[in-house]
Amino acid sequence: MEFKVKLLGIRAGGKQVIVIDDEDASQLGIHSSDRVEVTYKKQKIIAIANVATNFHKKTLGIYEEVQDKLKTKEGETVTVRPAERPESLGYIREKIMGRKLGAKEIKMIIMDVVERHLSDVELAAFVTSLYIRGTSMDEVEALTNSMVETGQTIDFGKGPVLDKHSIGGVPGDKTTILVVPIVSAAGFTIPKTSSRAITSPAGTADRVEVLCPVDLTGEEMRSVVKKTNACLAWGGALDLAPADDLLIQVEYPLSIDPLLLPSILSKKKAIGADYLVVDIPTGRGAKIKTIGEAQALAQDFIELGKRLNIHVQCGVTFGEQPIGYAIGPALEAREALLALMGKGPIDLVNKATSLAGLLFEMMGVDDGIQKANALLKSGKAEKKLREIIAAQGGDPNVKPEDIEVGKEFVEICSEEVGTVQWINNMAMAQIARVAGAPKTKAAGVLLHMKLGDKVAHGDVIYRIYSGSTQKLESAVRLAKNLTQLG
Amino acid sequence: MEFKVKLLGIRAGGKQVIVIDDEDASQLGIHSSDRVEVTYKKQKIIAIANVATNFHKKTLGIYEEVQDKLKTKEGETVTVRPAERPESLGYIREKIMGRKLGAKEIKMIIMDVVERHLSDVELAAFVTSLYIRGTSMDEVEALTNSMVETGQTIDFGKGPVLDKHSIGGVPGDKTTILVVPIVSAAGFTIPKTSSRAITSPAGTADRVEVLCPVDLTGEEMRSVVKKTNACLAWGGALDLAPADDLLIQVEYPLSIDPLLLPSILSKKKAIGADYLVVDIPTGRGAKIKTIGEAQALAQDFIELGKRLNIHVQCGVTFGEQPIGYAIGPALEAREALLALMGKGPIDLVNKATSLAGLLFEMMGVDDGIQKANALLKSGKAEKKLREIIAAQGGDPNVKPEDIEVGKEFVEICSEEVGTVQWINNMAMAQIARVAGAPKTKAAGVLLHMKLGDKVAHGDVIYRIYSGSTQKLESAVRLAKNLTQLG
Repeated sequence: MEFKVKLLGIRAGGKQVIVIDDEDASQLGIHSSDRVEVTYKKQKIIAIANVATNFHKKTLGIYEEVQDKLKTKEGETVTVRPAERPESLGYIREKIMGRKLGAKEIKMIIMDVVERHLSDVELAAFVTSLYIRGTSMDEVEALTNSMVETGQTIDFGKGPVLDKHSIGGVPGDKTTILVVPIVSAAGFTIPKTSSRAITSPAGTADRVEVLCPVDLTGEEMRSVVKKTNACLAWGGALDLAPADDLLIQVEYPLSIDPLLLPSILSKKKAIGADYLVVDIPTGRGAKIKTIGEAQALAQDFIELGKRLNIHVQCGVTFGEQPIGYAIGPALEAREALLALMGKGPIDLVNKATSLAGLLFEMMGVDDGIQKANALLKSGKAEKKLREIIAAQGGDPNVKPEDIEVGKEFVEICSEEVGTVQWINNMAMAQIARVAGAPKTKAAGVLLHMKLGDKVAHGDVIYRIYSGSTQKLESAVRLAKNLTQLG
Repeated sequence: MEFKVKLLGIRAGGKQVIVIDDEDASQLGIHSSDRVEVTYKKQKIIAIANVATNFHKKTLGIYEEVQDKLKTKEGETVTVRPAERPESLGYIREKIMGRKLGAKEIKMIIMDVVERHLSDVELAAFVTSLYIRGTSMDEVEALTNSMVETGQTIDFGKGPVLDKHSIGGVPGDKTTILVVPIVSAAGFTIPKTSSRAITSPAGTADRVEVLCPVDLTGEEMRSVVKKTNACLAWGGALDLAPADDLLIQVEYPLSIDPLLLPSILSKKKAIGADYLVVDIPTGRGAKIKTIGEAQALAQDFIELGKRLNIHVQCGVTFGEQPIGYAIGPALEAREALLALMGKGPIDLVNKATSLAGLLFEMMGVDDGIQKANALLKSGKAEKKLREIIAAQGGDPNVKPEDIEVGKEFVEICSEEVGTVQWINNMAMAQIARVAGAPKTKAAGVLLHMKLGDKVAHGDVIYRIYSGSTQKLESAVRLAKNLTQLG
């Protein structure tokens, strides 16, 4: 059936969607969420139909994502016909029914995820069924490989490639900013890509961005790694395992994470990692609550790594309180820089040297932690971070006091006397976010106390920093409503 | 945060969606699919955010569904803030985790479905988890009651109210057009609402519409029932259990149906049904394949009925071939009318009198089938149908030959010799749809043979009717590719 194009001039959040009048849809025999094939000249694309009542007759509303590919003009004629249901939808249905999927079936699904042939409803059903039915290690392997194969890969031309990853969940975890320069100062290659915060007050990319640009292209990343053996880049623009990013968008509102293993290892495989240490913060208030769970997850990481030819070791670390004292991009970047300069909090330093040490031992070093400590104390790791900062376009001579933190702050004081017994990770993260982090780099929380510290009545337990009085007030209000520590 | 309104002039297929630029979204701390509260003057609504890159800054794109409620103007200022995640989302998550939900929790979910506070992703996760985790009878009851309570109900002011429903799946099932007049001719009240076809070549509403208007308001429906004890109305515009319609939109692309029981009984409860017979067509090619499955489903219908104060009986009927010979709205309406005039196919007549008979026996009649047969043979049922047609605004004197069927047809002939052993229900339905049914009322298929009939080489096995040469050709092509009977 022929339609006149109406350019809507709106992006649909990445989806390939067209709008069609309900009577036209009925004549074509399509319903909302059905796929249509739109042809313009020699260009043919599959889009998902949004059936609207009282839309212009015989008119096809075209969102920008479709226009990007179709390159038509307002009022031009396009041909629309119902598209076959994608084969992958049948496999999603079989997963719902409880069947294990084969590698080819999973590849079809992941290809259709990347090609945007599946609707939100179908993606949500897929991740929900993966979560409830579970995934076998064969399925996990196929998911990971499919995610790698449907995206870009980067070859750094020198090996072995080392990498570090944390499954996250603990506020203030700036360990990567220490581990990467320690490892590369030893002469190893560690091209680290990180994400920005989704629900936390800071991701590694947000923290590093306080020191230098992180939004590198693949080519820039290769050049930085060539110069310094390392990088601290944002992974989001590199198109590494793009299916993962698309599926995360669906997992996020549901707060489920059935693709944890493929999500992490696909990004690592895409940059050619050979040796990987995975940090699994464990404890009340962390993602993983018990040592038993952490060990089971570690086994899965190691097993999946074997199948992908990546040597994986896991560090099960203490996750019951923030790492160091600082939460929020600028506060954390400052604390990490201070730590590399020999003035860091002991838990942060210990965590970084342990994880770097694990990588060293995988590379045949006898006492990895000692080597990591030596590189830190000698200033070689600090020097290396400054090289990376310079290579990424930042100021290599940046001083901790140059890093701006929120000018306005409020101190939260203790109304109790005693010893700090626990800290509510989630509350601290929420307060930092309400104060403006990660969007406002200078916003966040600076703890004055940690577990085991003695507190007198009226002692400052933490400061909230913010760039805006209004946000500061909201954060203080929230602080009064949450139990942050006890 | 304040935004200027940009009216998009597009409906979003029923959803309450706004478009917001990604940088503005980031400042508000919201992500795609997050909910926002939009305030304009005293009007406050919750909408789902569609985060678009490069949308106009500080501008809120407003779809028509939002505009219907907000009634703002282009360029006006509205206030936007992140809305709380609805409590119901937590319950959906618990269902994903495998917990049974309580009645209050289910009510919250269904209310948020109707209020459009849940995104497609969340609805899809809900129905997928209902499907995989299963639903207890307590949950089914709560779902049904919540669906009734969040919609309109109709009180016909006279009782008892009888009703009939088929779970569907067999082409050509026009039984309702016989059952309703038979039952009402006996003096019982049977205010029947039906749906239009979604994936089949004709729903009861599509068939009846050939004879008279079906798109009645609640008030019109009450008036028709007052006059005739019955009606044959389309249920779609009556806002009965609207949550059901919204959830079906999500179930449809996934081809799953975890809400079968609540979906059916909520609509019946909403019109105050006291006695209900449910037809469960069973056999290869039907929704329910075995007598065992049919009996289990019947038990569930009866149990749910008890909890809702509806007396339910189920008829397990033969579902391995179309009912009668006609498939498609006009062909079926004609066949139903002929059957009421004493010239109907035996299987259709038997099915209708059995189901009507079941209802009669529920009302204390000794031999229900005999009574149904008597009402049919005496012409009282025909007279009643004509009364209903008149009351709904159709021509009560309509003759079978007045009903237009497709002028163009093609006869499909046998290439084999023998006896018809099976008929492919799905293939016959697909051919009728490709020929134009249900949109083109006159399109469809007319069988010349049914199970057990002897066939010689070259005998006509069925005719395909269509309003368009092109569609007729497509249907014939499809017929050549499908195995229709053997």
